[in-house]
Amino acid sequence: MSYQSSVAQDSLAAAQLEMAGNPNALALRRPFDPVAHDLEASFRLTRFADLKGRSCKVPQDVLGKLVESLQQDYSQQDDQFMHVAIPRIGIGLDCSVTPLRHGGLCLVQTTDFFYPLVDDPYMMGKIACANVLSDLYAMGVTECDNMLMLLGVSTKMTEKERDVVIPLIMRGFKDSALEAGTSVTGGQTVINPWCAIGGVATTICQPNEYIVPDNAVMGDVLVLTKPLGTQVAVNAHQWLDQPERWNRIKLVVSEEDVRKAYHRAMDSMSRLNRIAARLMHKYNAHGSTDVTGFGLLGHAQNLASHQKNEVSFVIHNLPVIAKMAAVAKACGNMFQLLQGHAPETSGGLLICLPREQAAAYCKDIEKQEGYQAWIIGIVEKGNRTARIIDKPRVIEVPAKD
Amino acid sequence: MSYQSSVAQDSLAAAQLEMAGNPNALALRRPFDPVAHDLEASFRLTRFADLKGRSCKVPQDVLGKLVESLQQDYSQQDDQFMHVAIPRIGIGLDCSVTPLRHGGLCLVQTTDFFYPLVDDPYMMGKIACANVLSDLYAMGVTECDNMLMLLGVSTKMTEKERDVVIPLIMRGFKDSALEAGTSVTGGQTVINPWCAIGGVATTICQPNEYIVPDNAVMGDVLVLTKPLGTQVAVNAHQWLDQPERWNRIKLVVSEEDVRKAYHRAMDSMSRLNRIAARLMHKYNAHGSTDVTGFGLLGHAQNLASHQKNEVSFVIHNLPVIAKMAAVAKACGNMFQLLQGHAPETSGGLLICLPREQAAAYCKDIEKQEGYQAWIIGIVEKGNRTARIIDKPRVIEVPAKD
Repeated sequence: MSYQSSVAQDSLAAAQLEMAGNPNALALRRPFDPVAHDLEASFRLTRFADLKGRSCKVPQDVLGKLVESLQQDYSQQDDQFMHVAIPRIGIGLDCSVTPLRHGGLCLVQTTDFFYPLVDDPYMMGKIACANVLSDLYAMGVTECDNMLMLLGVSTKMTEKERDVVIPLIMRGFKDSALEAGTSVTGGQTVINPWCAIGGVATTICQPNEYIVPDNAVMGDVLVLTKPLGTQVAVNAHQWLDQPERWNRIKLVVSEEDVRKAYHRAMDSMSRLNRIAARLMHKYNAHGSTDVTGFGLLGHAQNLASHQKNEVSFVIHNLPVIAKMAAVAKACGNMFQLLQGHAPETSGGLLICLPREQAAAYCKDIEKQEGYQAWIIGIVEKGNRTARIIDKPRVIEVPAKD
Repeated sequence: MSYQSSVAQDSLAAAQLEMAGNPNALALRRPFDPVAHDLEASFRLTRFADLKGRSCKVPQDVLGKLVESLQQDYSQQDDQFMHVAIPRIGIGLDCSVTPLRHGGLCLVQTTDFFYPLVDDPYMMGKIACANVLSDLYAMGVTECDNMLMLLGVSTKMTEKERDVVIPLIMRGFKDSALEAGTSVTGGQTVINPWCAIGGVATTICQPNEYIVPDNAVMGDVLVLTKPLGTQVAVNAHQWLDQPERWNRIKLVVSEEDVRKAYHRAMDSMSRLNRIAARLMHKYNAHGSTDVTGFGLLGHAQNLASHQKNEVSFVIHNLPVIAKMAAVAKACGNMFQLLQGHAPETSGGLLICLPREQAAAYCKDIEKQEGYQAWIIGIVEKGNRTARIIDKPRVIEVPAKD
């Protein structure tokens, strides 16, 4: 095809420059600088949408209402689904699981898309990809067979901005897919008022490759593999440019704190939950979900509601990116971070593990990844609900050096 | 789950009412009446986006430029792909085809989403589903193993509008999936300025279940299975409410003509290309694509560019929904319908067939579906391009009675 263009070539060259010739050497990569791409210094990707990241989710209760008609139908008609895979739209299990015509194989699939929440287009692509894959990992699936990419190009972008930003997003998405051992073979790009990024992840596997997340038992403990507070961090970072907002939080946090938290959040959101998923098999996990748009408690409640046994989840500890709990408090109840309702993007896995395995799980993941995981709660007898105790302990999670 | 709501129940009841208790009896279904759902009489679904249907596609040349970086990489690195399945994002083949770890099977996948172009939410859902599936059918794949639904709920909808419209869209999508012998097991719903609808279709199949669309030979003929002009029809219909627009076309078309064309377009867009795909195997098709956002010529050119043999496509006949060619002419060059550039949504398949099989193909599809297909052009020696002759014959396709 003959769609050559020197503009696209230039942005590609710039992208390669930023990656210092090694797409996987993230540490070596220089942060996105709009001026280096001939864009205005004030260019901010996050201004191309009014909502950020997974906070664009339709509220959990509204969504439940909207998809009700579909769910009723399925439960009456579709007996080809295993007991586990009650199909749900956007709520319920993280992936759909469909038995195939071909001997014993299952199709495990998920889709997700959302809006920019960091200003670095390459990182935004990586985060979007990690976020889509995370739904597979939450089911203990570690191999992805194929990915599709979904892109909305903002009507408000100039041609120049588009030609710089979109290839960088695509490249970030693709590099993350390569890191996950898969590749992007197609997708869809449309024009939309807001810039939007997402994808589809698909695996065909044997039933023993995924873990049905309904097997929590009394005495299990809950492990979380990434800190909370990504949404608070990306907002606080945006407020550095907005004096009236910044004034609300500057008494509790320094500019340097916010920058560190922002980078910790980017680092965390772009990290794959793949090793976390692999270790679920090794340490006999009883179920897991990933923490995204509905916040820690929303996802915990959803996981609890799917349990076979009469259990409930009680959360005692909240690992939060350093200083972000203080920022959230200074903003009144806006984020609901300590109440467990702050949306996260590409958050960690929340895993039910046998009590005697949990410490070993956390040790192993830290050894393999260099990132901590935390025991944050317990599974007790109950009516399939989840709650955070009155005064949870906040664990301040520092930025990595 | 306890997301019961009397509002959602009411809209469901209304939906069932409209379908006269039989979701497949489309003919019995009353058209969508906003007032019957307690919405304003002036409610129009198409007002929740500034672009319509597949015209939201990023222009073909721009997209080519944007995805270039990805394509370069794949052609260098990914040798696990068959010669056919050069992965492309949004352009190129209609589906991605990925060989699987499991003996001899392939993953065939596609995704698409766009904006409302008809005012009936249920029909909009059906059209969106037919449009997504159409990419599988274009590859000769007749079975779909799983679908996911993508939904953008407009920020501009009232709660009431949302609670009426979204379940109807979902139901239309689902009914179309059932008609196609598949089901919707998951998806993603986000808030977006424009209402958006789409999905993902996935099949796991043997390589003989799909038809590599690269085998056209000199002497083949081109068959089209649905009329052109859907975009013109939905625009003309919207102009019935807009006197200054209506005045531009009222000399060439009556209100009745426009209403008929609109219903013909809805009927056509919601019709599955499944039988067309099945018959491709029976009559030895050499390749096919579906006609959507890039218009007849755009997709023809794309198909031509993928051919193994040195061939070109020449199009002589343009079947167009009755009166829509006249409307397009009256609008100056706005639609570029007769130039082959008018976007279509959920258009027909454009199929290369051996000359001696083409008439039998057209006869068979008409017998099975009750809809005509047309021989519109020929395959001659050439440099893998496509063109429409200077004065193509316009075939007026009347609304069905």
